Amino acid sequence: MGDVICTVDVVLLTLRTAALHVLLHRREREPFQNVLALPGGYVHPHTDRDTRDAALRVLQDKLGIQSPYLEQLATFSGPARDPRGWSVSVAYYALVPENLIGNGKDCSGTTALCPVDDLRGLPFDHAQIVETAVHRVRNKSSYSSLPMHLCQAPFTLPQLQTVYEAVLGEPLNKVSFRRKMDELAVLEAIPGAFSSGNAHRPAQLYQLKPAWRHALSVTERGI
Amino acid sequence: MGDVICTVDVVLLTLRTAALHVLLHRREREPFQNVLALPGGYVHPHTDRDTRDAALRVLQDKLGIQSPYLEQLATFSGPARDPRGWSVSVAYYALVPENLIGNGKDCSGTTALCPVDDLRGLPFDHAQIVETAVHRVRNKSSYSSLPMHLCQAPFTLPQLQTVYEAVLGEPLNKVSFRRKMDELAVLEAIPGAFSSGNAHRPAQLYQLKPAWRHALSVTERGI
Repeated sequence: MGDVICTVDVVLLTLRTAALHVLLHRREREPFQNVLALPGGYVHPHTDRDTRDAALRVLQDKLGIQSPYLEQLATFSGPARDPRGWSVSVAYYALVPENLIGNGKDCSGTTALCPVDDLRGLPFDHAQIVETAVHRVRNKSSYSSLPMHLCQAPFTLPQLQTVYEAVLGEPLNKVSFRRKMDELAVLEAIPGAFSSGNAHRPAQLYQLKPAWRHALSVTERGI
Repeated sequence: MGDVICTVDVVLLTLRTAALHVLLHRREREPFQNVLALPGGYVHPHTDRDTRDAALRVLQDKLGIQSPYLEQLATFSGPARDPRGWSVSVAYYALVPENLIGNGKDCSGTTALCPVDDLRGLPFDHAQIVETAVHRVRNKSSYSSLPMHLCQAPFTLPQLQTVYEAVLGEPLNKVSFRRKMDELAVLEAIPGAFSSGNAHRPAQLYQLKPAWRHALSVTERGI
């Protein structure tokens, strides 16, 4: 059978200034020591229950982020993608609200939040992995509750619409957007909670129902 | 890093008597020697270019089937799925017309074509892999050219509609089905070729345009 290197990589996405960003991590070791890359690592067969578990461990250990919304993306493989040898990387993508990533004052420079449409110098095949993830997220967002995981709760419906518009890259009709949100049936109004602090009248605040914080609701016809 | 077993498995699907069937292969070696299972095997890092290449090799070597429509499904992993140890299986699914599988007179019993909705006794986590593949195929068929790969060319539009209906499990409206096929824009009429041999007037015969024999066309709104 020969030796195959088995790793996981995670594309952790968030929205900053209405643009999708990916969180990169500076590599501690060779190959590509000190280069910003997707957080990843070897599967640990003695302790990981599966590759998903390995991905969650990597997020926790390297970024201090606990069990966000996480889905398997695809598996990348071949003799050339990793200089250490023939390798398989099971890639995952995760979506988090920006506040979960910290306050952006990471002076040590071990992480960097980079816009997905302007990435340069990524090692391995990480550019291709990010591209695949962004394509998947944009596509899946057009008919599901996926973008809600980018939104810090509690949020108003106009705020949520802005998030969808940022991910999909197009303006949405307010009435049809609200109908779609009803159809998805994953939001709950927080009793007595309203937005304040601007000139408009207060808007109802919402959050994801607990059952939908790690699951996806889809519509037949698209957002 | 420890040792991880790296394999591929292929869910090869076809339509027989209007029902999705999966082609199983009798295992030549332990574990589960002589048991019908998904065709699969170790990745060969010295010769496989990637896991997709390994899946194509397995189809060729074990079933004599050459490069059908093949897509990565998902990767399955963990300490318990394979008695040999912690393993990763990169699973693929392939769709072929029934005639490609042979004439069903496989007296040696090394393969068996089984209805996907009535599978029993599959080893490893192969039942879960098949279930994931069938779910993916049914879902993707509802908005794409995917079922066309189950159809032996040349075919008439009524024959193709029957294939879609079998996969989706519901009758389709003829007019809207034809509009969707136009939208997908992957079929070409074969000049001067018409069906014969029944009481109806001859119907135009079609085939997939060459560019679409290994690619997928999708519609925004579903079939």
